[in-house]
Amino acid sequence: MSSVRSASAPIYFGSFLVTPQVFHQTAHSFALVNLKPILPGHVLISPRRVVPRVSDLTPAETSDLFLTVRRVGRMIERYYGAASLNIAVQDGVHAGQSVPHVHAHIIPRKPADLDPMDAVYDMLDGEAGDVEKAFREAQTDCPSEHERTSTRSRSRFPAVDNEERKPRTAEEMKAEADGLRREMDKEPLD
Amino acid sequence: MSSVRSASAPIYFGSFLVTPQVFHQTAHSFALVNLKPILPGHVLISPRRVVPRVSDLTPAETSDLFLTVRRVGRMIERYYGAASLNIAVQDGVHAGQSVPHVHAHIIPRKPADLDPMDAVYDMLDGEAGDVEKAFREAQTDCPSEHERTSTRSRSRFPAVDNEERKPRTAEEMKAEADGLRREMDKEPLD
Repeated sequence: MSSVRSASAPIYFGSFLVTPQVFHQTAHSFALVNLKPILPGHVLISPRRVVPRVSDLTPAETSDLFLTVRRVGRMIERYYGAASLNIAVQDGVHAGQSVPHVHAHIIPRKPADLDPMDAVYDMLDGEAGDVEKAFREAQTDCPSEHERTSTRSRSRFPAVDNEERKPRTAEEMKAEADGLRREMDKEPLD
Repeated sequence: MSSVRSASAPIYFGSFLVTPQVFHQTAHSFALVNLKPILPGHVLISPRRVVPRVSDLTPAETSDLFLTVRRVGRMIERYYGAASLNIAVQDGVHAGQSVPHVHAHIIPRKPADLDPMDAVYDMLDGEAGDVEKAFREAQTDCPSEHERTSTRSRSRFPAVDNEERKPRTAEEMKAEADGLRREMDKEPLD
């Protein structure tokens, strides 16, 4: 449960090096801040082992991943003054997964933060939530992780992925990760 | 892990009696078929204890819930010939939760099953995915679980919740649950 390990070995999310964005690590999982959060506090929880599907995880990895979702989610909700959480796993490419490395989205929600309320899902599955594209563009020497399916929707919510949603800088992400790392240190273990 | 227990004590999803819809039970969790599945094979996994938030669960309940999501998801994907899964928890009313009892949606996905691909989320959060309303209408002596937030979107995808999406009969749900119960008996424990 120590978050000290985040300073040590390099951590990859798919093929992307994300070490400075990682704010929490457990035996089998890590938590990272997002390049383009859909809402403030939108973070990802992944297993250390790079596998695409939940069914590829061992039972121990599965338990650890979702115990981490629960514990990080509780912290995120408090830290960002939220009232609820959307927790979502796009488990496989036909469910909208972009980076072929299991990841649970945690998105803190507040009353009337989005209109309509379910726009969060369109953002998650549209270009706004395309974590692979965002990382690839930020780390321009990385190739695309895989081909997109032709059915992916990208253009339904143009207001969401407009010029105002620029990727955050490395400094911004590191500052958030540092704050969340300190906050996790205060979080009860259970 | 025995599914024999499904024939014994009554099982409640929120205030709704769902015993005949339950096809799998574990120490802390159960799996049930849906009254109005968004796609074929759309099922729910809930903790036995009726609590609204993931953070209300103990670590043991959390592990058991998501190990059940993984194992049931694997079976559902195979049984329905799917290629991916959407796994989603609306954790709190401001995240779209209708029944105040933790539940993970498992929705099997196939190539080009929905156009656009992310319509599944609109269905999940719109009237089509309103499990509380569906159960309340089916069990008409049950009061509404709680007041809706005024921000919920209900009318964006009229084609989804049209006349063709009638709630399934008790017999249809029981037949599906019986089939899934037999299928779970074949599923490896790990």
